Amino acid sequence: MNKKDISLLKNIDNEILLLSHTAAILGWDQETYMPQNSVEERSSQLALLSALIHEKLTSEITASIFKDIKKYEDISFEKDISENDRYFIRKIFNAYKKQSLLPVSLVKEISKQTSISQHTWAKAKEDNNYKLFKPELEKMISLQKQKAECYGYTGTPYNALLDEYEKGAIVSQIDKIFHDIELRIKNLLDKILVNGNANGNKTGDIEDSFLYGKFDVKKQDAVGRKVLEWLGFDFNSARMDTSAHPFTTTLGFSDVRITTHYKENYFPAGLYSIIHECGHALYEMGFSKELKGTSLAEGTSLGIHESQSRFWENMVGRGKGFAKLFWPVFCNYFPEAGKNRTHEDFFMAVNKVKPSLVRINADEVTYNLHIIIRYRLEKMLVEDKLSVVDLPAAWNNLYKELLDLTPDSDSTGVLQDIHWSTGAIGYFPTYLLGNLYAAQFVATMEKETGNVDDLVEAGNFKIILDWLRNNIHKYGALYTPDELVQKVTEQPLDPSYFLVYLDKKYR
Amino acid sequence: MNKKDISLLKNIDNEILLLSHTAAILGWDQETYMPQNSVEERSSQLALLSALIHEKLTSEITASIFKDIKKYEDISFEKDISENDRYFIRKIFNAYKKQSLLPVSLVKEISKQTSISQHTWAKAKEDNNYKLFKPELEKMISLQKQKAECYGYTGTPYNALLDEYEKGAIVSQIDKIFHDIELRIKNLLDKILVNGNANGNKTGDIEDSFLYGKFDVKKQDAVGRKVLEWLGFDFNSARMDTSAHPFTTTLGFSDVRITTHYKENYFPAGLYSIIHECGHALYEMGFSKELKGTSLAEGTSLGIHESQSRFWENMVGRGKGFAKLFWPVFCNYFPEAGKNRTHEDFFMAVNKVKPSLVRINADEVTYNLHIIIRYRLEKMLVEDKLSVVDLPAAWNNLYKELLDLTPDSDSTGVLQDIHWSTGAIGYFPTYLLGNLYAAQFVATMEKETGNVDDLVEAGNFKIILDWLRNNIHKYGALYTPDELVQKVTEQPLDPSYFLVYLDKKYR
Repeated sequence: MNKKDISLLKNIDNEILLLSHTAAILGWDQETYMPQNSVEERSSQLALLSALIHEKLTSEITASIFKDIKKYEDISFEKDISENDRYFIRKIFNAYKKQSLLPVSLVKEISKQTSISQHTWAKAKEDNNYKLFKPELEKMISLQKQKAECYGYTGTPYNALLDEYEKGAIVSQIDKIFHDIELRIKNLLDKILVNGNANGNKTGDIEDSFLYGKFDVKKQDAVGRKVLEWLGFDFNSARMDTSAHPFTTTLGFSDVRITTHYKENYFPAGLYSIIHECGHALYEMGFSKELKGTSLAEGTSLGIHESQSRFWENMVGRGKGFAKLFWPVFCNYFPEAGKNRTHEDFFMAVNKVKPSLVRINADEVTYNLHIIIRYRLEKMLVEDKLSVVDLPAAWNNLYKELLDLTPDSDSTGVLQDIHWSTGAIGYFPTYLLGNLYAAQFVATMEKETGNVDDLVEAGNFKIILDWLRNNIHKYGALYTPDELVQKVTEQPLDPSYFLVYLDKKYR
Repeated sequence: MNKKDISLLKNIDNEILLLSHTAAILGWDQETYMPQNSVEERSSQLALLSALIHEKLTSEITASIFKDIKKYEDISFEKDISENDRYFIRKIFNAYKKQSLLPVSLVKEISKQTSISQHTWAKAKEDNNYKLFKPELEKMISLQKQKAECYGYTGTPYNALLDEYEKGAIVSQIDKIFHDIELRIKNLLDKILVNGNANGNKTGDIEDSFLYGKFDVKKQDAVGRKVLEWLGFDFNSARMDTSAHPFTTTLGFSDVRITTHYKENYFPAGLYSIIHECGHALYEMGFSKELKGTSLAEGTSLGIHESQSRFWENMVGRGKGFAKLFWPVFCNYFPEAGKNRTHEDFFMAVNKVKPSLVRINADEVTYNLHIIIRYRLEKMLVEDKLSVVDLPAAWNNLYKELLDLTPDSDSTGVLQDIHWSTGAIGYFPTYLLGNLYAAQFVATMEKETGNVDDLVEAGNFKIILDWLRNNIHKYGALYTPDELVQKVTEQPLDPSYFLVYLDKKYR
């Protein structure tokens, strides 16, 4: 590949990035401020942008540059090209290869269906009406299966979808890890439920009623913004709004946006979704300036992304140090709720382990079982082992099996998550992988920075963020998840770090 | 032109419309919620969208369809094509002809410079620092002159720019109308200042201090939303936010957005900017469904657009009927301000004629002089008769000449308006044309609906809106401004309607 080709590719990549950010703006607006009657038209706008991205990526120029289709999969090609350029070429080559396998009609259809079924999902959830959502989900699953067939796969079509979110991950490996995690977590959960929670208190004894009640939303918002400042969230390059389902999206190198949702009657819902999304946002705000304007300025995978959000949410935000630091702020805004309580009560309350129905409010231990349920179900849907009409029953059965609970409605059951409505199938397992990556990263981090809890208690968030920036964030999508884990921790992914972390915290 | 060509053109037109709406979303976001560090990147995103629109409009397909460049200027071509399709073809042909004269590099450069100089203007206005803005304005004027040269023109290059905003308008005609208006308005103003305002009160005697004070912004917002409901603003297809400079923008057939700005110390600023922008929005919400998805679903010109906003703002919102209807609402929200006052006091206060420095807060009479000042200046800038460095002095001289006032700072002087920073040169005269169109339309309307003031007093806004929809809004951009005025009022534009309206109201 000559210099002119590389320069051509960089131009195309930059235009694709600008169009992707443009689509992100439309998506953000749709979830935050768009008038309700505009859903259909917004979906047409997004479909056109998808088609334009597809066209640019699969143009005659890229096709001619990439005519030797095997050459660019391995980073060792053409040693005379600089290392960074080779990583860049690999990245855009992989995107090209995938897109060139998809007909533009399918790209447009998926984009359009995404807006429609997402909107229908929101309505169905609100009305507790799975029937309304069912035909849209059927269309979406069918489109995702078509996509998998276009990509091609070994073993199960689910592998083709999984690879979109976690480059290199495969079902056989995930099955093995998740099987092991499931056994160990259930074992730990049984012990916690019998022997009591962290600090030896029995589950039933952990008092968390002071976090339920009436928490003024404006005050919650003020508290949330204070915490965001502590963590290093830059309001000149980012913002926070509210939406039905919290999310993070990137609209530009200097424009990262998170959303949260406040529950007036349950304080932790707002705070921890803010810290979680802030973790994603800090990753997106931490890419090296050298990557600006290229598609390397993005998180390398959803699993790595989730390692950042779960790290900040659980290992920082649910640590003892945070409880100590945060407690005076909480009491200042909500003196009634804080009366006769201590930071230790707060720590215990936000770490209370208790099987529950809703994933995003689940504790760190049972959370993983929520993911395993979704992983199993979506795999069956894609592999034609489960039909969309039987999904709610299958959902409820698995909740009974793994968490010994039955949803009282589809809104708190199968309709609780936005993901499937957006076509995000193969996405859920990255949440669990994120926990595993996070624990492994932290074990390495603490060798250099010392104990995270101590740093947080002292308000030294900057030391933590600097370590993450220098070791993870700055690389953006230069390395694959596997390469990054190896580079940072000097070993491949090892789930035992996470299990040790849980054991230590909860036994 | 065969059916296949028409269908091809409609597809292209639809894609251009979707991209234009996408650009509008980015523009809206930039003025409302975008983090400040993202200006440069947003400008790149917008520049790419402009280039894509340019590409689509000037593609080989359109070029080959429109190869006979003269044929489509007149609506009488090819009588076998349906009338609506002929209007559609004329519209896209005109857009094609203009765009095909511009090199894509200039399109991109203007788009990029727009974001940058708009941002610089905002900062310069805030800091009262014209020097900061000067180099950006110079670049913008130079780009606009380049554009005029590309388009070509007869007489002055200003004609080429004016035509962008008011199809068919030319300087020689505007000069004549504005000269006449200037003399008549100055004459009326002299009489008002000597003899007193409407109802015979002397200007100095009109008591409007109760509209200055402390008006809680949240309450102003609630009042504004109530008025929007009265007027027929549909919150399911539209929304209102705040921004530095109020504006209306269309993000889709069912997604029209207005912004306002509240002044805590002056009540009318918020209310009347809301009513004004609502007038624009009602036009955009009133296009016939048949035009959906085509570029005919837009206002036909800025002058006609302004006729709608100025009609609602002044002829409705500053009428006696509105004062009567609105007064109890005002007193309910602001009982202190309303104490010992009547709806008549309100009517007198919001119609107080007094020369002032800031256009958007000017009364109906002096407003026109503000426009004439800007028209004269921008024409000189484009014709190289005035340089950007001398603009503030020229501005101040004209304010002295026409309004006998001198700005105390550039922020309230030459920097007060956003327009020039966005490259909108040739735009200001449409504000005055809007007043003229409005008065002529209302004279026709009242023959059918009866007195507007009476309808408003009774809350019968729907009758007014229905008339506007059926006679003006539904046509979108089907007709040129001239054709529309002729169709609605059965005569060409006649400025005397407006002068008669002013005379009647203020003498």
